[in-house]
Amino acid sequence: MIWNRRHLLDLQSLTATELITILDTARSFKTINERAVKRVPPLRGKTVVNLFVEPSTRTRISFELAALRLSADVINFTAESSSLKKGETLKDTLRNLEALNADFIILRHHASGAPHFLARFAQAHIVNAGDGAHEHPTQGLLDVFTIRERKGNIAGLRVTILGDILYSRVARSNIWALLKLGAHVTVAGPSTLVPRVFEQWGCRVTWNLKEAIEDADVINLLRIQHERQRVTMFPNLGEYTALFGLNPQRMQWVKPDALIMHPGPINRGIEIESEVADGPQSVILEQVNNGLAVRMAVLFLLNGGRGPASSELDPKMVSKPAELTGVSAPS
Amino acid sequence: MIWNRRHLLDLQSLTATELITILDTARSFKTINERAVKRVPPLRGKTVVNLFVEPSTRTRISFELAALRLSADVINFTAESSSLKKGETLKDTLRNLEALNADFIILRHHASGAPHFLARFAQAHIVNAGDGAHEHPTQGLLDVFTIRERKGNIAGLRVTILGDILYSRVARSNIWALLKLGAHVTVAGPSTLVPRVFEQWGCRVTWNLKEAIEDADVINLLRIQHERQRVTMFPNLGEYTALFGLNPQRMQWVKPDALIMHPGPINRGIEIESEVADGPQSVILEQVNNGLAVRMAVLFLLNGGRGPASSELDPKMVSKPAELTGVSAPS
Amino acid sequence: MIWNRRHLLDLQSLTATELITILDTARSFKTINERAVKRVPPLRGKTVVNLFVEPSTRTRISFELAALRLSADVINFTAESSSLKKGETLKDTLRNLEALNADFIILRHHASGAPHFLARFAQAHIVNAGDGAHEHPTQGLLDVFTIRERKGNIAGLRVTILGDILYSRVARSNIWALLKLGAHVTVAGPSTLVPRVFEQWGCRVTWNLKEAIEDADVINLLRIQHERQRVTMFPNLGEYTALFGLNPQRMQWVKPDALIMHPGPINRGIEIESEVADGPQSVILEQVNNGLAVRMAVLFLLNGGRGPASSELDPKMVSKPAELTGVSAPS
Repeated sequence: MIWNRRHLLDLQSLTATELITILDTARSFKTINERAVKRVPPLRGKTVVNLFVEPSTRTRISFELAALRLSADVINFTAESSSLKKGETLKDTLRNLEALNADFIILRHHASGAPHFLARFAQAHIVNAGDGAHEHPTQGLLDVFTIRERKGNIAGLRVTILGDILYSRVARSNIWALLKLGAHVTVAGPSTLVPRVFEQWGCRVTWNLKEAIEDADVINLLRIQHERQRVTMFPNLGEYTALFGLNPQRMQWVKPDALIMHPGPINRGIEIESEVADGPQSVILEQVNNGLAVRMAVLFLLNGGRGPASSELDPKMVSKPAELTGVSAPS
Repeated sequence: MIWNRRHLLDLQSLTATELITILDTARSFKTINERAVKRVPPLRGKTVVNLFVEPSTRTRISFELAALRLSADVINFTAESSSLKKGETLKDTLRNLEALNADFIILRHHASGAPHFLARFAQAHIVNAGDGAHEHPTQGLLDVFTIRERKGNIAGLRVTILGDILYSRVARSNIWALLKLGAHVTVAGPSTLVPRVFEQWGCRVTWNLKEAIEDADVINLLRIQHERQRVTMFPNLGEYTALFGLNPQRMQWVKPDALIMHPGPINRGIEIESEVADGPQSVILEQVNNGLAVRMAVLFLLNGGRGPASSELDPKMVSKPAELTGVSAPS
Repeated sequence: MIWNRRHLLDLQSLTATELITILDTARSFKTINERAVKRVPPLRGKTVVNLFVEPSTRTRISFELAALRLSADVINFTAESSSLKKGETLKDTLRNLEALNADFIILRHHASGAPHFLARFAQAHIVNAGDGAHEHPTQGLLDVFTIRERKGNIAGLRVTILGDILYSRVARSNIWALLKLGAHVTVAGPSTLVPRVFEQWGCRVTWNLKEAIEDADVINLLRIQHERQRVTMFPNLGEYTALFGLNPQRMQWVKPDALIMHPGPINRGIEIESEVADGPQSVILEQVNNGLAVRMAVLFLLNGGRGPASSELDPKMVSKPAELTGVSAPS
């Protein structure tokens, strides 16, 4: 198992080998979540703080369950009712949580780079749970995990990401992971939201839906954040749906074994029709399920360097270390 | 022990035998809550989600403690800060929680029938924690448990429910359980809130307080929801108190061994005077205490079909299965 | 170990011996928080309720972690979403929590005396987590613990408390504990916030910063609550900073081994400059860390009279009772 990092801040800086280490570890944890008793001891006596300066029930619950199933103590700290509202700096909040012996800080923040900033001072492990428009690494990991589980391998696959690419941390984390693992990535959507600059990252850019999806092995639809509408970016929701919404008619352009993905929560009737979201090619709920396994794997690996993890983890409970290290990076 | 249901949605559809099974099981759990160490293992490694779309601290805490004392992991999910506010459907919220391997979903919802709707698709066990004006089954169960513990038997008792019957889910769950177990039920209050239609259920209807309470063995006062006042239903709070408030003078009409019940939180000086609420005939706090035991019993029984419950539960810790099954329904 | 109290309501009524018992016990728990596995069993199966009628994330998290590390079940109950908002009295809330078998109620309340009021009826242990402008006993204890750990002894030390003394529960708890343990206490700040009446408690009163800090062994800066500004008490924040803010220049008046303390969250640039808050004499983060140990000690001692605490606590895990009782009060 190749893992020496103290924090998970982004996917951009991970090597393909490190990505594969997380994905392989997550595979072991996925089986734990299918048992009657979904608890293993590696983080017993550890303190995990969900520091959600930007609120997100969905991601918070996934991290909270991941930590609880690893037997950690979990504290939820939301900005609304906190000392951050009394003018405390983020750095002081970190120092205070560390003074309470927090071992892990799961940070969701509206500012890009906030977790990197904290990591410069942190004794605790920092896990980025989404920072501004920058990255959402565990979302990228769970997407890649889902693709890999379904398709066997990432290298050589054609993956299209469709929607508001410009402001999407989900898109960025996916792009980094997919490119490192050898996929061909297309980004698509309205031209105002899909600038040509992504070509410099190694992506294909297209503003034509048919072109974007007709040869794709995977189509990852981003959520249109209509509750915080980028009003200047496209005329209205109806127009987006008319031009880029995925519906049964347009599914005829799609390869029959292509995967339909979405980070959720989905807007039925806007970026995706219900027939597609609930159809046989959709893996949207598998993504949610895999997110838990990926987050358990991340906490487990980060803890590994200094906790009782590997020795304490019952070999009957997760797959053997041999299995964990036996898979090499596909690219 | 006769229990084959996957969900607890209402009391209307339960048989008397099923009701008795829950009540007998709850009796065993009540003793657990009186110990120094209030923890038993049946739900270890299970995930219980409190999905409170309509907020309720009191009921949420009772379910949360019930789950914790059964060693479950508990996640609180309130509508205010959730993806439901981003337009996600309730069905999609369910599917997402199930993708996180939730074993139990405790649903409080402002819409009547919401838990029944979810149960049509659910893999997880659904427990109705109050749906609109429809039912609040665990409240009905704890009320019947309290009466049975105090009076020995339900059959033949005269039980009066007093207040806003029309909009009360507490009243409905009580009526179903009481009738099934053989009680005579009177519903009483202002005529605008106590329509004659309840006679079709088998209840006596009266708008006269003295008539309602003078021969009752149990008087269950409903909370006047003055913070969401039904302004059109009666002139004002003062008039309600003048006509239907239970005070020491009116207690002279009441049988000396009649029980005074209330689902809480009580409005002192409105539907009940402090002398009555705190008096020797009041069992209001016993109801709260019994609620915990009833909710533990419900989670335990629902889990029984597919979990390690019965085998894992130390026979020294709760009463023996023999005792649990040895009591037959009184009607 | 000399401890017979059921509640921790204030420091005013504690004896020096009782204070020392808490401080010595806290020393043992501090080592637990430095371990990889930060969990001990004394409160297993006990229910701790954080009843925060006045919100405070920081204090709530410290108590929550203290309870979790003692293996208790913790319920968070905030006023915003509770039955208290439906008009329930505080006494009824207490009775309901006790009906749920709550063992400990940690109460933060805006009204001075609220925990004393509850303690008159309570079966559960009441811990005051701050009541109005009256007391914040665990803050006082953690401050004294920090001073004692750094200075070895409290008796004879010169301690200056600087800021809004008049409205500060932190100041009051500190004053009581420090005087009982033999310190010389100076209170200082603007004359409108530091009335002469504190001389009757045995404190020196001064409105001159230099005089207040030049001979102090400890300087405890209070937070200026600018979000709930006492507008009539001093002209503006800038003037406070100009006259009483602690900055590097003024640190030249301070003894080189004097401790700089602050209950947090700090207002950088208002009552304290960053160079001072982060400087070598600052023990602000040690205070946070010690708060956890002090709160664990309080819960442990209160539980001792009727729980499995002392016998269940592994002697290998905390220091021996002999060590706990071997230290006598310094005054």
